[in-house]
Amino acid sequence: MNGADRLCDTLLVNGVDVCFANPGTSEMHFVAALDRKPEMRCVLGLFEGVVTGAADGYARMADKPAATLLHCGPGMANALANMHNARRAWTPMINVVGDHATYHLVNDAPLTSDIESLARPMSHYVHRIATPEDVGPAIGEAYAAAMSLPGVATVILPGDCAWGSVEPAEVKATPVPAFRTVGSDTIREVAAALRKHGSRAALMMTGASLRAGALETAARICAATGCKMYGQMSNGRIERGAGRVAIPKVFYPVDMALEQLKDVDLLVLVGAQIPVGFFAYPGKPGRLIHDGCTVTTLGKMGDDLVGALDALAEETGAAKVEPAFIAKAQTETALPTGTLDADKVCTIVARLLPENAIICDESVSSGRVFYQQCHNAPQHDYLQLTGGAIGEGIPMCVGAAVACPDRKVIGMQADGSGMYTVQGLWTQARENLDIVTVVFANRTYAILHGEMRAVGVNDFGRNATLMLNLDEPALDWVSMARGMGVEAARATTAEEFTKLFKGALGRKGPFLIEAVI
Amino acid sequence: MNGADRLCDTLLVNGVDVCFANPGTSEMHFVAALDRKPEMRCVLGLFEGVVTGAADGYARMADKPAATLLHCGPGMANALANMHNARRAWTPMINVVGDHATYHLVNDAPLTSDIESLARPMSHYVHRIATPEDVGPAIGEAYAAAMSLPGVATVILPGDCAWGSVEPAEVKATPVPAFRTVGSDTIREVAAALRKHGSRAALMMTGASLRAGALETAARICAATGCKMYGQMSNGRIERGAGRVAIPKVFYPVDMALEQLKDVDLLVLVGAQIPVGFFAYPGKPGRLIHDGCTVTTLGKMGDDLVGALDALAEETGAAKVEPAFIAKAQTETALPTGTLDADKVCTIVARLLPENAIICDESVSSGRVFYQQCHNAPQHDYLQLTGGAIGEGIPMCVGAAVACPDRKVIGMQADGSGMYTVQGLWTQARENLDIVTVVFANRTYAILHGEMRAVGVNDFGRNATLMLNLDEPALDWVSMARGMGVEAARATTAEEFTKLFKGALGRKGPFLIEAVI
Repeated sequence: MNGADRLCDTLLVNGVDVCFANPGTSEMHFVAALDRKPEMRCVLGLFEGVVTGAADGYARMADKPAATLLHCGPGMANALANMHNARRAWTPMINVVGDHATYHLVNDAPLTSDIESLARPMSHYVHRIATPEDVGPAIGEAYAAAMSLPGVATVILPGDCAWGSVEPAEVKATPVPAFRTVGSDTIREVAAALRKHGSRAALMMTGASLRAGALETAARICAATGCKMYGQMSNGRIERGAGRVAIPKVFYPVDMALEQLKDVDLLVLVGAQIPVGFFAYPGKPGRLIHDGCTVTTLGKMGDDLVGALDALAEETGAAKVEPAFIAKAQTETALPTGTLDADKVCTIVARLLPENAIICDESVSSGRVFYQQCHNAPQHDYLQLTGGAIGEGIPMCVGAAVACPDRKVIGMQADGSGMYTVQGLWTQARENLDIVTVVFANRTYAILHGEMRAVGVNDFGRNATLMLNLDEPALDWVSMARGMGVEAARATTAEEFTKLFKGALGRKGPFLIEAVI
Repeated sequence: MNGADRLCDTLLVNGVDVCFANPGTSEMHFVAALDRKPEMRCVLGLFEGVVTGAADGYARMADKPAATLLHCGPGMANALANMHNARRAWTPMINVVGDHATYHLVNDAPLTSDIESLARPMSHYVHRIATPEDVGPAIGEAYAAAMSLPGVATVILPGDCAWGSVEPAEVKATPVPAFRTVGSDTIREVAAALRKHGSRAALMMTGASLRAGALETAARICAATGCKMYGQMSNGRIERGAGRVAIPKVFYPVDMALEQLKDVDLLVLVGAQIPVGFFAYPGKPGRLIHDGCTVTTLGKMGDDLVGALDALAEETGAAKVEPAFIAKAQTETALPTGTLDADKVCTIVARLLPENAIICDESVSSGRVFYQQCHNAPQHDYLQLTGGAIGEGIPMCVGAAVACPDRKVIGMQADGSGMYTVQGLWTQARENLDIVTVVFANRTYAILHGEMRAVGVNDFGRNATLMLNLDEPALDWVSMARGMGVEAARATTAEEFTKLFKGALGRKGPFLIEAVI
């Protein structure tokens, strides 16, 4: 057996049994090894951004990493944007990047590049394999790193380490370090601070604290102490819907966020960072909390956030208190009609959402009302773009659908962002994934129109118009989707959209609706 | 005026008047400044790989850089693969990467990343602008670097350096260092070595030495000394066709290249590297020359290669000698008929090629006979994938067509590679560029089938089949192209292809032919 076989065995013994792949010549031994492992599900992406976006979506739902197979520095370069999003979502991921044979690097062949330099900014863990015997331990370490950070682990696999022989040996599962327990001193201090600040305190949450159970614990603490709770602006996954906690997120527009947080004098970080503007603007602050706000940390990513919340509930006497902020089911009202716009699309999707759906939200500016509207929708998982690197929506749907084949995946997709990884539609078709993609076809980079106004430009000339609009010609999403094997249709009225969306929910397999707004 | 205005002025005064762009929020002041400069042509790409691929194609034909506008680390990450190709082609390019305001970096906002670490592997020159007043000098220095290496210069532009005020000042053109003159000792030594080795010597050429005039000079040297001449395996641009020098390139398959170069005892590098295998294979050498081959350097990139060849021609008494290897015009023979295959497509394109066309070749395995077939075609420029980072063909056509609006651009496009930056078709439509894209629709990663056989795997199982084939479902290029506003049609016979190709040549504007092979 060779290093590539050992690689597959080490992944499989650790339960990593999905590999999103876009292979090249230097990975042929890895492909051959995967071919000997039918228990590994290999999913091809026609571009590497699809591969890592899918791996991100998969792991957010499966709570374990997928492997990715990427080809040399340039192949990984194509994957970096969605690795960035995964890093910002604290998603476990194991990237295997094929490289030239160790002795060939000195020849500076055309595809040679400094893979480590490219990988580090978008990875929590980077390791270059040195020998065939190094493959097993390296992949085990990468798995443990991915699970315990949690985060993105990138392993560089030279060709000769894949094709070189290894001694047969029993491959054992790699022990994963437990999340760190938050100390009782911290729990007591946070509890005391919460009591002191009452309604002028807030929890700022992300990661595991946004799952239904932890959210409910946090909502008990809110009920007991009077504090508020927020999710970060962007999070990997939130379990939500009627009967669960309706947690607001920090707003994207700086002025709205400052208003939202202006009364918070104590901010308790639960895996989260201090909220900051997505961008800086002349004359506006970067931090979204006021200067007098005290910040304290209940736990960081890698800590046992769920356990910390449980302990904090005990300490604050909240364990048996009824949780605050539980969302009621939405009431039956008439669906929007007439000319379609972005808000109507959001309303219709929220109102018709099937039970237990997974929403992958890359609606950008079109979907700003959507999150709020879904508080009372049937229970669902909400995955969003975390790192601002657009082009994750279509692949994230792929990954979520692979992880949860029995659940409906709804992609809320801005058109400009969707074009970044439009190739992912083909993977949706090939794998016959149960995904409804709703494209908000506003035919502009609408968010940038707003940002241009924010810098004081209201009348656009020729160059700005060319750079901010996607018309001339209008993108025909129905044709593009069909070209990649995905059935699709176009809606220009609310009634048409409702009909198409209901139809898409009533069938299995991928479907795309171009909502012209 | 602000830093962004100064940036535009500095580009324009240096003759950089095309900007391929995919802007984001942190570049809004740059966009606003571009909007005040109608003399700057702004071309939008719907993905950053389109932007840098187009900038590469543009500069190869214009012999001066375009600017690119990229958004933060992740936006530049999407651009890296084609920056890699540009770096390997020694293409002048000025990338302007917007970043957060200097004071916002400490807040680690979602889009923050280590841009320098990402940029360095794919750039010859990287600089982070520190103040608004630094913008002008930095862009001037980047321009000089891009022109004199020549190569890829990447400049990071923090938002506050774009929006901050600068003192009005006259902006002057930046002096560009001349290429280094190769010393007369080197000329004499190379001449002596060539005389000594006669027909067992060869010139290995790239860069400026592959333009028609320099090639003819080299071919005179070949005639006078008996030496051979080769182009590198991959080169940025070759001027060729009937009446010009027919220069062979180093073959891609290792065994063929070893056979090709087995009698070369003296290799003279003219801007080129020592030829090496594109990949390493178990048991095969990495270098493609034999161990006893002497290697000497006439000049490196950044040296005056054209002047060095002129001097070498004088020194070898070749200046007045008739050049060797001049290609005759092709003779009229019947075009292929019947079921279409890759070789027939190549033959028909070569035979019908219009005068003064620009060929952008990303045909990968499908086009291996094409280069040879075009020696005798009407005169044309031949641009190819240089760094092995697939997904450059469609954007390269964009750039070449922007640089040379009066010439027909022919894209020879493998289907798997074409999917990487398929979004570039939309830019072809928007700019109404005169491009015929020929897609070799073999519906596999054909090159990888060969590579799998090279590692000894002949029977593919389910996983290998899934990862190496692009069928299930077949890509419908006609629908995809139409979805992005490019007219398109499909050919399944040689007669159909001939008719479509003739039709496409007889009209202006983009057209795509899906050649099902």
